[in-house]
Amino acid sequence: MAKKTASQKRSKVNAEDMAAQQREISVSEFFSKNRHLLGFDNPKRALLTTIKEAVDNSLDACEEAGIMPEVWVEINQYENREDRFTIKVKDNGPGIVKEQVGRIFGKLLYGSKFHRLKMNRGQQGIGISAAGMYGQLTTGKPVIIISKTRENAPAEYMEVVLDTRHNEPKVTKEKQIEWEAKAGTEVRIDLEGHYQRGKWSPDEYLRQTAMANPHVSLYYKDPDGKVMSWERASDVMPKDPKAIKPHPHGIELGILINMLHQTKSKKLKACLKNDFCRVSDNVSKAICDKAGIYENARPKRIARQEAENLLNAIKETKLMNPPLDCIAPIGERQILAGLQNQVDAEFYEAVTRKPSVYRGNPFLIEAGVAFGGDIPADRSAKLMRFANRVPLLYQSGACVMTQGVQKMNWKLYKVEQPQGALPVGPMMILIHVASPWVPFTSESKEAVACYPELEKEITLALQDIGRKLRIFRNRKNRYKEENRKRKYIEKYIPHIGEALQEILAFSDAEREKLTETLTATLEKTRMQKVS
Amino acid sequence: MAKKTASQKRSKVNAEDMAAQQREISVSEFFSKNRHLLGFDNPKRALLTTIKEAVDNSLDACEEAGIMPEVWVEINQYENREDRFTIKVKDNGPGIVKEQVGRIFGKLLYGSKFHRLKMNRGQQGIGISAAGMYGQLTTGKPVIIISKTRENAPAEYMEVVLDTRHNEPKVTKEKQIEWEAKAGTEVRIDLEGHYQRGKWSPDEYLRQTAMANPHVSLYYKDPDGKVMSWERASDVMPKDPKAIKPHPHGIELGILINMLHQTKSKKLKACLKNDFCRVSDNVSKAICDKAGIYENARPKRIARQEAENLLNAIKETKLMNPPLDCIAPIGERQILAGLQNQVDAEFYEAVTRKPSVYRGNPFLIEAGVAFGGDIPADRSAKLMRFANRVPLLYQSGACVMTQGVQKMNWKLYKVEQPQGALPVGPMMILIHVASPWVPFTSESKEAVACYPELEKEITLALQDIGRKLRIFRNRKNRYKEENRKRKYIEKYIPHIGEALQEILAFSDAEREKLTETLTATLEKTRMQKVS
Repeated sequence: MAKKTASQKRSKVNAEDMAAQQREISVSEFFSKNRHLLGFDNPKRALLTTIKEAVDNSLDACEEAGIMPEVWVEINQYENREDRFTIKVKDNGPGIVKEQVGRIFGKLLYGSKFHRLKMNRGQQGIGISAAGMYGQLTTGKPVIIISKTRENAPAEYMEVVLDTRHNEPKVTKEKQIEWEAKAGTEVRIDLEGHYQRGKWSPDEYLRQTAMANPHVSLYYKDPDGKVMSWERASDVMPKDPKAIKPHPHGIELGILINMLHQTKSKKLKACLKNDFCRVSDNVSKAICDKAGIYENARPKRIARQEAENLLNAIKETKLMNPPLDCIAPIGERQILAGLQNQVDAEFYEAVTRKPSVYRGNPFLIEAGVAFGGDIPADRSAKLMRFANRVPLLYQSGACVMTQGVQKMNWKLYKVEQPQGALPVGPMMILIHVASPWVPFTSESKEAVACYPELEKEITLALQDIGRKLRIFRNRKNRYKEENRKRKYIEKYIPHIGEALQEILAFSDAEREKLTETLTATLEKTRMQKVS
Repeated sequence: MAKKTASQKRSKVNAEDMAAQQREISVSEFFSKNRHLLGFDNPKRALLTTIKEAVDNSLDACEEAGIMPEVWVEINQYENREDRFTIKVKDNGPGIVKEQVGRIFGKLLYGSKFHRLKMNRGQQGIGISAAGMYGQLTTGKPVIIISKTRENAPAEYMEVVLDTRHNEPKVTKEKQIEWEAKAGTEVRIDLEGHYQRGKWSPDEYLRQTAMANPHVSLYYKDPDGKVMSWERASDVMPKDPKAIKPHPHGIELGILINMLHQTKSKKLKACLKNDFCRVSDNVSKAICDKAGIYENARPKRIARQEAENLLNAIKETKLMNPPLDCIAPIGERQILAGLQNQVDAEFYEAVTRKPSVYRGNPFLIEAGVAFGGDIPADRSAKLMRFANRVPLLYQSGACVMTQGVQKMNWKLYKVEQPQGALPVGPMMILIHVASPWVPFTSESKEAVACYPELEKEITLALQDIGRKLRIFRNRKNRYKEENRKRKYIEKYIPHIGEALQEILAFSDAEREKLTETLTATLEKTRMQKVS
C-alpha cells in the first residue's frame, strides 16, 4: 500500500463523505431555528402572535359552524416570573374532534384551509402549532386543549407536545372532564413573552379585531387582572364565503400538469370543466380544439408539450372572472359603525370596492376614513390595516396598504403630506384586503405583498373617499369664511340701523325691524351659498 | 324521526365535517404556493435566485473538498421565447454520489448544512431544490444533473422532478455518459425568467462574488452570447471553517430538553461536556452541583423542572466564548484587492473585526471603503452587502448592514449625508457578515436581521475606517489649501524677484537665483506642514 503524502493527509472530504452527512430536515426543525419567520423573533411579538393565532382560529371555526362568536382571552403571569405567561383563549365554537386535536396543535403544516380557495383568517396550517412549539421551546410545557363537540357529552382534556425532530404530535395526557360550556375549544399555551400596552399590544389587536368584526363578542383579561370587553355591535353573521375552484387564467404550466395527473375525471373536457371555475362544456371543448387535443383524451396521458399547448389555448380564451361569493366584505355600514365607535370625528366615510382579480385570485378592497374632531391634528394619520378581517400590527412599511396610502397625493384632498409619507392631520384610515389567498410577504402574515392590482384598487378606494373629504373640507372652509364675514357684518348691522334711523328719522321699533330684516337677509344668502 | 326545521337545514358544518377536511400539507406544496418567500416572486428575481443557489452550492462543495473552485455559468434562451431560459452551472467540485442526486435536487429541506454549526453559503437545504421546483412549475421540465465523482469513471446523467404533493424526488431518466471533466457537477434548470443587466442582474451578482471570493475563477456567458470571466486573483484557499457544537449560553429550555433526550451520553456530566462547546469536566460538574442534580443522572430521565434548574445554572456560569475557527473571514488584504480591482479610487481601507457572539452564535464583521477617484461624486454611496461571502442584492432596506451604514454619522468623517440615509459622495462601501448561522430575515436570504450585536460591530468597523477617511480628507483639504496659496505666491515670486533686482541692483543671474531660492523655501515649508 502506498504511503499517504502530507498533502493527501490534509485532503478534504470527498463526495462519499459528503453524502454521509446529508439528512432530511423536518419542517418543525426548520421553523424552530427560523422562528422569526413565523413572528416569534422577540418575546413581545411572540406573545401577540400566539394570541392572534388562537383568536383567528376561534373566529374561523365559529363562523364556519354558523355560530355567533364569543371569545375569551386571558393573559396570566405564572411562576411569579415577569417573562412567563399563560395564554388562554376560549371560544363557543363547534369544538374539535378528539382524533384531530394532536395534529392541529402539534404538527406544523396541517389543516383544512390550505388546500381550498376560501376567504379565511388562517390559510397556512402553521400558526397555532407554531405558537405551541414556541411555548414548548421556551418553557418546556405542553399545549393544553379542552374541547367539547356535543352538549350532552363530557369535554376532552389533552396535553400535546410537538416532536420537533419528526414534526409529529405526541399526546402526553388525556382525560375527560366536566365543562360548563355547551361546546367550544379552549387552548392554553405557556410561553416566555413580554407584555406591554400600546401600539403593538394584544389590547390594540383585540380592539381592532372587534372593530372589523362587529358580530364578535370579545372578553379580555390582561396580566394585571384588568377586564375589558367588546360586546357584539351587530347580530348579523357575515356572509359565509364559498370555496371556489382555481380560475384557469391564474394557472401555471407545472400546476396544470399536476392537476391533469391528479384529476378524477377520465376525459380532458370533463377535467377542465370540473376542476376549474368558469369553464362550461362549450368553453372546455373550444379550449381542447384550439390546443389541437382530442377532447376525450385521458388527462393523465397528456404530455408536457400538449399541456403547454393547452395552457396557451386557455390564455387565449376569454373567460368570466372568478365567482366573487368567496369573499365576504365587512361592508360600508359596519366600517362606519366601527370608526364611529373608535373615535369622535367630524367626517366619516367608507367604501367597499367591487371585487377584482390578480393572478386568477379574486380580491376586494375596503377603506374607511375618519377626520377631525378628537383625533390629534399634529401627527401622522393612524393607519389600521386588515387582511381577511384580521388586524395587522407589525411590518407596516413593507405592506401594500401603507404604500398605497403613502403614494396618494393627499394635498389634492386638502390634507397635509410630507413627500412620500403618511398624510399628517386629524385622520384615521382603515384598509381591508379580503381574498381567498392573501399574498403575505412572510409566514408571520403581517404585511401584504405589493401587487400592482392591489395597489390600484387601494388607490381607487382612497380617491373615492378623498373626493368626499375635499368637499367636506371645502365646505368647512367656506362655512368658516362665511362665518367670519357674517360676524363682521353682524357687528356693523346695528350701526347701519342707527345710521339709517338718523338719516330716515325711523322710530326705535322701525330701526329694530330694519336690523332684523338685514340680519335675516344676510342669513338667507349665506344658507343659499353654503348648501 | 323529527323533521328538520328551516334553520337546521341551513345549519353549517360541525366538528366532524371539519375534521374530514383536515389534511397534511407537504412543505413543497407550501412553498410552491408561497414561493415569493424563497425569492421566486417575479421572473427577474427568479432567474437571479436560481443562478445564486447553484453557484453557492458549487462553491461550498469545492471548498469543502479542498478544491480551488472554477465555476461556469451560462444563460441561454430556449424555444425562441424571450421569457424562457436554460440556466447551466458547472463546477470542478467533488461531484455528488448517484444515490443523493435525487434528494438534493428534488426534495425541499434536505441537506448536510442545516444540522451543523459551520460557516457555509447554504444553510437551509431549500435553495437549489426550490429553484428546480420553480423551473418545473413554470416550464414543466425536469432538472438535469451531470455528476462525476472519480476521474476514471463515467459521469452520471439524471433528470429529476419533484413530486410536489409528497415532497419527494422522482428520477425520470438516468444514464451514464462520457464527460471531459475529471470530476464535478453540472446542473441545468429550464425556467421562465426575465434577463436584465444592471443593479439586480446575474452579472452584478457574479462580479461581486468574484470580489468577495478572490480564490474563485468564474466564467460567464450571458443570453446574448457575451462571455465574461473573472480569473482567480489569489492562490490561497480560504481557511477551512470548523463545525462547532452549540454554546450553552445560546440554548433555550426546549432545545436543552431535546438534547438531553437525544444525547448518546449515559450520564449528565458527560452529556454537557460532549454535546456543547466550552464545557470542561470541571465546568460540567460545577453546573450539575449548582443545579442540584446528581452528575451521573441519566439525561433522558431529567424532568422539565430539573432541566430548568440546569439551564439557570448554565446561565449563571461564566464560560469561554465559543471557538472562533468556525468563521473564515475574507481578510483585509483580500478586501482591499477586491475594491482596487473594482474601481479606481484615491482612498482604500479595510477592517476585519475580531469575532463576537450573539445568542451563543459566533459572528464576525468586515468592512471596506473606497473613496474618490472615478467613483461618481453626486450619488449615494454604493453599498455592497455580503453574508458568508455571498453578495446580497435584494431587500437592502430591511438589512442590518444598510441600517448600520445609515445610522452612522458620516458628517463626522467629512462625508455628506442626508438625515438617516446613505452617505452621498464618491464612495463604495463593502460589508461582510460571516457566521455559522446568519440570521436572515426570510428564506430567500437577501437581508440580515437587525440584531443589536451585529449592528454594533458594523458601526465599530465603519468608525474605524471613518477615522482614517477623515485624516485622508483633512490632509487632502490641507493639501488643496496649500496648493492654492502656493500657486498664489508662485505667481508673485518673479515679480518680487524683479522688484528686488531693481532695488538692490542685482544681475539677471542673481535675480534668477533669488527666485529659485524663494521657490525652494516655499516648497520646503509646504512639505513640512503637510506631511
